[in-house]
Amino acid sequence: MKKDFVDLLQNINTPSDLRKLPLEALPEVCSQIRQFIIKELSCNPGHFASSLGVVELTVALHYVYDTPYDRIVWDVGHQAGGHKILTGRKDKFSTYRKFHGLMPFPSPEESEYDTFTCGHASNSISAALGMAVAAHLHKEQRNVVAVIGDGSMSGGLAFEGINNASTMPNNLLIILNDNNMSIDRSVGGMKEYLHQLHTSSSYNTLRYRLSQKMLKMGWLNEERRRKILRFNNSLKSLLTNQKNVFEGMDIRYFGPLDGHDVISLVRTLESIKNMQGPKLLHIHTVKGRGFPAAEKDATIWHAPGKFNPETGERLDENQDGQPLRFQDVFGETLLELAESNPNIVGVTPAMPTGCSMNIMMKKYPERTFDVGIAEGHAVTFSAGMAKDGLLPFCNIYSAFAQRSYDNIIHDVAIGKLNVVLCFDRAGLVGEDGATHHGAYDMTSLRAVPNMIISSPMNEHEMRHLMYTAQLPDMGPFVIRYPRGKGILKDWRCPMKALQVGKGRLLQEGKDIALLSIGPLGNEAEKAISMVKEEGISVQHYDMRFLKPIDEEILHYVGEHYTHIITLEDGALKGGLASAVMEFMSEHCFPAHVHGIGLPDEFIEHGTPAELYRMVGMDAESIAEKIKKYAHK
Amino acid sequence: MKKDFVDLLQNINTPSDLRKLPLEALPEVCSQIRQFIIKELSCNPGHFASSLGVVELTVALHYVYDTPYDRIVWDVGHQAGGHKILTGRKDKFSTYRKFHGLMPFPSPEESEYDTFTCGHASNSISAALGMAVAAHLHKEQRNVVAVIGDGSMSGGLAFEGINNASTMPNNLLIILNDNNMSIDRSVGGMKEYLHQLHTSSSYNTLRYRLSQKMLKMGWLNEERRRKILRFNNSLKSLLTNQKNVFEGMDIRYFGPLDGHDVISLVRTLESIKNMQGPKLLHIHTVKGRGFPAAEKDATIWHAPGKFNPETGERLDENQDGQPLRFQDVFGETLLELAESNPNIVGVTPAMPTGCSMNIMMKKYPERTFDVGIAEGHAVTFSAGMAKDGLLPFCNIYSAFAQRSYDNIIHDVAIGKLNVVLCFDRAGLVGEDGATHHGAYDMTSLRAVPNMIISSPMNEHEMRHLMYTAQLPDMGPFVIRYPRGKGILKDWRCPMKALQVGKGRLLQEGKDIALLSIGPLGNEAEKAISMVKEEGISVQHYDMRFLKPIDEEILHYVGEHYTHIITLEDGALKGGLASAVMEFMSEHCFPAHVHGIGLPDEFIEHGTPAELYRMVGMDAESIAEKIKKYAHK
Repeated sequence: MKKDFVDLLQNINTPSDLRKLPLEALPEVCSQIRQFIIKELSCNPGHFASSLGVVELTVALHYVYDTPYDRIVWDVGHQAGGHKILTGRKDKFSTYRKFHGLMPFPSPEESEYDTFTCGHASNSISAALGMAVAAHLHKEQRNVVAVIGDGSMSGGLAFEGINNASTMPNNLLIILNDNNMSIDRSVGGMKEYLHQLHTSSSYNTLRYRLSQKMLKMGWLNEERRRKILRFNNSLKSLLTNQKNVFEGMDIRYFGPLDGHDVISLVRTLESIKNMQGPKLLHIHTVKGRGFPAAEKDATIWHAPGKFNPETGERLDENQDGQPLRFQDVFGETLLELAESNPNIVGVTPAMPTGCSMNIMMKKYPERTFDVGIAEGHAVTFSAGMAKDGLLPFCNIYSAFAQRSYDNIIHDVAIGKLNVVLCFDRAGLVGEDGATHHGAYDMTSLRAVPNMIISSPMNEHEMRHLMYTAQLPDMGPFVIRYPRGKGILKDWRCPMKALQVGKGRLLQEGKDIALLSIGPLGNEAEKAISMVKEEGISVQHYDMRFLKPIDEEILHYVGEHYTHIITLEDGALKGGLASAVMEFMSEHCFPAHVHGIGLPDEFIEHGTPAELYRMVGMDAESIAEKIKKYAHK
Repeated sequence: MKKDFVDLLQNINTPSDLRKLPLEALPEVCSQIRQFIIKELSCNPGHFASSLGVVELTVALHYVYDTPYDRIVWDVGHQAGGHKILTGRKDKFSTYRKFHGLMPFPSPEESEYDTFTCGHASNSISAALGMAVAAHLHKEQRNVVAVIGDGSMSGGLAFEGINNASTMPNNLLIILNDNNMSIDRSVGGMKEYLHQLHTSSSYNTLRYRLSQKMLKMGWLNEERRRKILRFNNSLKSLLTNQKNVFEGMDIRYFGPLDGHDVISLVRTLESIKNMQGPKLLHIHTVKGRGFPAAEKDATIWHAPGKFNPETGERLDENQDGQPLRFQDVFGETLLELAESNPNIVGVTPAMPTGCSMNIMMKKYPERTFDVGIAEGHAVTFSAGMAKDGLLPFCNIYSAFAQRSYDNIIHDVAIGKLNVVLCFDRAGLVGEDGATHHGAYDMTSLRAVPNMIISSPMNEHEMRHLMYTAQLPDMGPFVIRYPRGKGILKDWRCPMKALQVGKGRLLQEGKDIALLSIGPLGNEAEKAISMVKEEGISVQHYDMRFLKPIDEEILHYVGEHYTHIITLEDGALKGGLASAVMEFMSEHCFPAHVHGIGLPDEFIEHGTPAELYRMVGMDAESIAEKIKKYAHK
């Protein structure tokens, strides 16, 4: 750091402090923020490369706009490190993503500078358009800016927002942060299109410089500028007989611009800030900017864990002898199955690395499809392939699969198509918090006819379920499993067919019955060991299937037990507990059903262990519940 | 009809019969199909204007393509009348949309010519792309055609499909049927863009004619044609420095073409049929073509009911003294509320007429937003407005709201924003069948924290709920109500605030308790009258709220009754019945809960009365259930 500026960041507590600085100090502010982020995240792991990529943009936005009165809507909060540092949260930055600490993404709950929930991609334009329309109706002179990456632009919601931007009076600015990346890489025609815009930008540059000159010479007030722009657009249309897609949709297009030149960003934002009507500014940035290792491989450095801030060496904990992650068991098993079943194809919406489908992708590039951030399309596209005889394994994070709820009902379930829906990150995911927990898949899909819904307790069960799902004519088949490591070291067992709708008895006991689904069954086993010492014996079933549910088990426990505990890592309302109650009620069994599952509230962030303890779903809490009802 | 051709349609039982005819006979086939549709639908009401608009396209597609081996994927089956007539279902056409009759939309269950479920808009491109990829992987020389209207193009799913079309090897043809309409009218920037494509089409026409000439002269085989097209595209890019959006996304663009010139359609399809790679053919058609009244007002003639096929006079049943439709009570009440609460705004995804928001739109055009077919955006846009102090009433048909499940969770519920979600067409909708029944809203949203979920039993309750929902800081507030008429003639009562989470006692009785939510409560009342004659008295509550549920009522019935019947017009799994069971279980009440609701299967089409009877939810069936448990 240069000496003259050494205290710059220290004295910035809010954006208004930033705005007191001269323009020429901003590059140094950027540099200090960047160093701060690198230092902090090297020991407190979090999303890294995205935040580094938008340091200059973040500084420019808060410098030019009157935040929090003006609104910045971040699309996916991965990138909001710098934003948090500049808006009063620098001192708490070491608690970022920790239990009870700073939230993983911007959230209006945490700060007035955070305008909207931003855990799921592609929602910024629609939300910002809403705010811009509210400002218009309330006659407020408020500016609203949506910042969206090119990766998020493949999401249909972003298109729906753009398609509507020009149809109503508003003053929205969309900043398209083009880094040729989502988490893995940007996908699709739009990416190509943006690339072409870049290479054919001379006209736009010319137009922009022209208007800048006229502004300096005092020829250009807002009214004149609007007319001239309109004339410019018309001239261009006349010359070229085409507009770019944004202009075609009546959104003024500016750029592309170097997103790491903070001075030029500030000047550009100043000059377009008060123009009326929807606008789009296209900037180019590099993910991981300023940290060479991250610039080189932004996918790995999306969320790298701990690292050495000097050398860029990643400090992975020792993995030897540890179980694989569930996602890797998925990835390896998918490849294994694909080798023997030529109809198997893989589909992922922008998560080939995140769900480990890259393992199959490497061997069968023509049979794996990364469709970009587009969960709805991922499912409907899978359904189309299934209709003509392929067997898609469509892998979506549980929370993001909410985006494809209608596609699952309308395009898969009604037609009873053979699509295997693999929901990774089901249950509490940990540090990514409320927007990323996979809480609603079981309860929302249990009501949908024709669905098979399963969850493995461990890696062997996972493999059996995957094997079973690809057998002929299974119909829609959900396999949900958690984030993180499994429990077995020898995960690669021979695979076998399971009977759909059949659970398994794990342990016999006379005092109470416990029915679990999914990996929480392992916590239940610990709990059962604990209460055994107190002389309580528990009949424990791993249900395997939420739907169809094993009625033989339910008949048995209904007849033999007064109290039944159910355990599931999903929303309690409408899930396994409800399914068991419905059965008991229908068959007039007097058994009392006590559900353990996610409560009716959005759960914060923290480690999964912290969170499961908090909501009473760890082994100790399960043991308490067993003790409470075992001898009643 | 001309005499020479009089028997044409009579002799066409499958498309192969059609393909035996000479090209010049096709205009007469079209005319006969059109007359057939007009005659049939004049007495058997159904979707009308859309089918008339695509008669020529339908004939051309089945003439050129080898259906059913080649795949035609219709986007929204409104338009499939002609398709059904040509594919072996002419003789059953009088049963179209009737109970146990021909299905309202194409369905693979009904015919091998129907390739995919098509009740919800915008899914055709993704599904067809899946089929095209399957053909490619199976090395089949199969052609796949998606037919999508410009209205459906505003849906994000369509964009996601297009964005992916060029990223994988396939032979997809997208036919963009541009009639400047969805059900109401086409919305957004894309509409403007398509219009500009039309007006700047000289280049495309030139290019197309050029390739046609070269083809005739034998200069053009497929390999050459591809090279030339690539050259053409490059030349154009060079000249204009821009491509149109489809070409920009590497989809070859042809058109626009007159979609009512069947000869030219056939010739064009023939010439592009075997070109490799994704292609888009842009045609212009007129909804209601060939029936002057429908051409003039396609919105009214979307589904006009019975009419005189000669004069175009619509034969509405006498409406005097009948209750209004629920949607009109919504529309009138919304206007009333908007008059006194300036923060109220209205949002509808392409259904201003269908949900009667056009009533408010007329008086407050700047406060009502038709966002086009874009349910996700409708909700997130509403959330953005709510974030900055407006109070949106966002009206979506229940089945289509499945498209916005994640938007409701992530963009509304997490932030606890004041968005009123009005779900029209909740419960069984009747003739539109499985894709349109509103079955899953209650069960999928009950698990979501912060939601208020309500359903009115009648129009007065509807008004009270709407009034209550717009009071300060209510948070996310669902009001779901059915398709069709209400039950009260004097619907316009003074409005009052209801206590959230409180039901009401309608009738006292000692033998059994019945808890209903929504308008089925009226069927319950009939059932209660029936059983009264047999000496059974029923304690009947209208719960009003599914969530928060009235625990005072539940405590009371848990204490005083052995049997409790619940009644809801939504999926039984996870809904009201489950909520009541969960409560009874939690409080260890021994009461038996018997749920009446939609069973775990997709329900076919028919009149609502026929369907509710079929699933055991009419007054008689409810009475049976009461009798079964009342004296147990």
